Amino acid sequence: MPPGEFELINRHFVRRGAARDDVRIGVGDDAAVVAGRAGSEFVLALDTIVAGVHFPPDLDARLVGHRVLAVNLSDLAAMGADPAWALLGLTLPAADERWLTGFSAGLDALAHRFDVELVGGDTTRGPLSATIALAGFVPAGQALRRRGARPGDDIWVSGTPGDAGGGLALLQGRLQAAGEERAELLRRFQVPEPRVGLGRALRGLATACIDVSDGLASDLGKLCAASEVGADLNSRLVPVSNALRAVAGSVPAFTLALGAGDDYELLFTAPATVRARIDALKAGVALRRIGTISSVAGVRVDGALPEREIGHGFDHFAD
Amino acid sequence: MPPGEFELINRHFVRRGAARDDVRIGVGDDAAVVAGRAGSEFVLALDTIVAGVHFPPDLDARLVGHRVLAVNLSDLAAMGADPAWALLGLTLPAADERWLTGFSAGLDALAHRFDVELVGGDTTRGPLSATIALAGFVPAGQALRRRGARPGDDIWVSGTPGDAGGGLALLQGRLQAAGEERAELLRRFQVPEPRVGLGRALRGLATACIDVSDGLASDLGKLCAASEVGADLNSRLVPVSNALRAVAGSVPAFTLALGAGDDYELLFTAPATVRARIDALKAGVALRRIGTISSVAGVRVDGALPEREIGHGFDHFAD
Repeated sequence: MPPGEFELINRHFVRRGAARDDVRIGVGDDAAVVAGRAGSEFVLALDTIVAGVHFPPDLDARLVGHRVLAVNLSDLAAMGADPAWALLGLTLPAADERWLTGFSAGLDALAHRFDVELVGGDTTRGPLSATIALAGFVPAGQALRRRGARPGDDIWVSGTPGDAGGGLALLQGRLQAAGEERAELLRRFQVPEPRVGLGRALRGLATACIDVSDGLASDLGKLCAASEVGADLNSRLVPVSNALRAVAGSVPAFTLALGAGDDYELLFTAPATVRARIDALKAGVALRRIGTISSVAGVRVDGALPEREIGHGFDHFAD
Repeated sequence: MPPGEFELINRHFVRRGAARDDVRIGVGDDAAVVAGRAGSEFVLALDTIVAGVHFPPDLDARLVGHRVLAVNLSDLAAMGADPAWALLGLTLPAADERWLTGFSAGLDALAHRFDVELVGGDTTRGPLSATIALAGFVPAGQALRRRGARPGDDIWVSGTPGDAGGGLALLQGRLQAAGEERAELLRRFQVPEPRVGLGRALRGLATACIDVSDGLASDLGKLCAASEVGADLNSRLVPVSNALRAVAGSVPAFTLALGAGDDYELLFTAPATVRARIDALKAGVALRRIGTISSVAGVRVDGALPEREIGHGFDHFAD
């Protein structure tokens, strides 16, 4: 590869995403400069996705570009933050113009939807991986944390968890399905939808929040550990999509919904007094109450500690 | 590797770097939350270093930890910014406790020196690479840019460029030296010193600034392109260390000083009217005037366009 080629590659990322009026210096200098906002704090997240670990190496480049931004948007959603600026670290084995065009288009489309401007970053040669550092705002003191859940709080989840894990299992041939069910589950794995609007709407309502990346049971365990509480889940209340139920076969579908990762739904707690306000939220996704926070440590499903296999309803892609 | 091991690894990065009182939420939640500062803008940079591309795969882990933060600190230095918060993306082929201990110690020591707190990030499995996203402050409107150099401005450089490239060439066996010269050049490659204090001191003095990562001539070309000007360098004024002169052999040492990368010195321009003020700066590193900005495009050395080989006085490690 001739010297300078990676500099040319960087041009794929100039003027990507929204054009924000709080960007003072964007792509092309040693660093980006952005303006603050009175009464707000800054929220900062960084996530890396690695080919062969977090996505199949032959995944469509457009979906890789979507995914690396989506997982970071989901982190900001879980904090109740408004995303604003992204930096991209892209490592590529070679300068593949077609791949880059797809990747930057996938990133660009999602960035526009959430008013995020790509303000900088770094492209290097090496094994395929992508990192986004994402920054945004939250009104001072109002960030949603993992800690804060209190005994008696309702436990809520958005959407239908487990679908993305089902889609991955289909891709890997560990589950079989055809037609609409297959298409729906694949889409849920391949095009995760970060719940940014929901996170924002939960400011002042939720007592704790986390995004479901490792699996509902596992991530609920983290929320409980941070909050120093426990949780009782009711398996009949766990939302399961028709598509997931169709592919589950003889496995109880709720175990897949509790065990699979990559959903990027929000899992949150709130006092019973705000139930009606949460039910009334127009967050673009269904919200379901699935259990109650307890003062007794541990995550229980229908009164019993969850079987180890619930934590691994699907084997994760790796790790 | 058992599940959860990478979560254990993340514990190596809890409470690393300085403890800053503007950090509201640090490592351990979905994202970090930090406070702004009245009258300041935020400066954001992201740089990745990949084993086998930016550093030898067997480089001491402590030096890798130092390096990934140093290259980002250098970006903020080139903007005249005060660094504050870092996010780390670390990709590792396996959980190597000894390597992690060294890496986090190298990162921690440098972070403390520059009052940077590690507030978050992500550890994943994959081919060895490290990314830092670094955020900091600059007084509103005072960031140093690559653009801004004007014809007649002096061109300045800190330190003795080329030394790091010499050190790398020694490591790779492309140059030979022993004793103090060898040790000095190796140190300059292995332990780059970001010029944060100098960048801060240049606010209000420099008209343009860039850090020397690709090589003085090449980076001066970028500064000139951004400023829409040209540059005339005087080879006799280019500072060359005794160590570099000793290993250069029959090659004119200034070509090594102009062509080699990885120095992380600052290259900046300023009007002749502030010469005395720049000479009086106590920035912990020598500053030298090496030429003059011109209205005629291009970078010339002693009146001639630089030979192609000046841009490649050393072959870069890759790319």
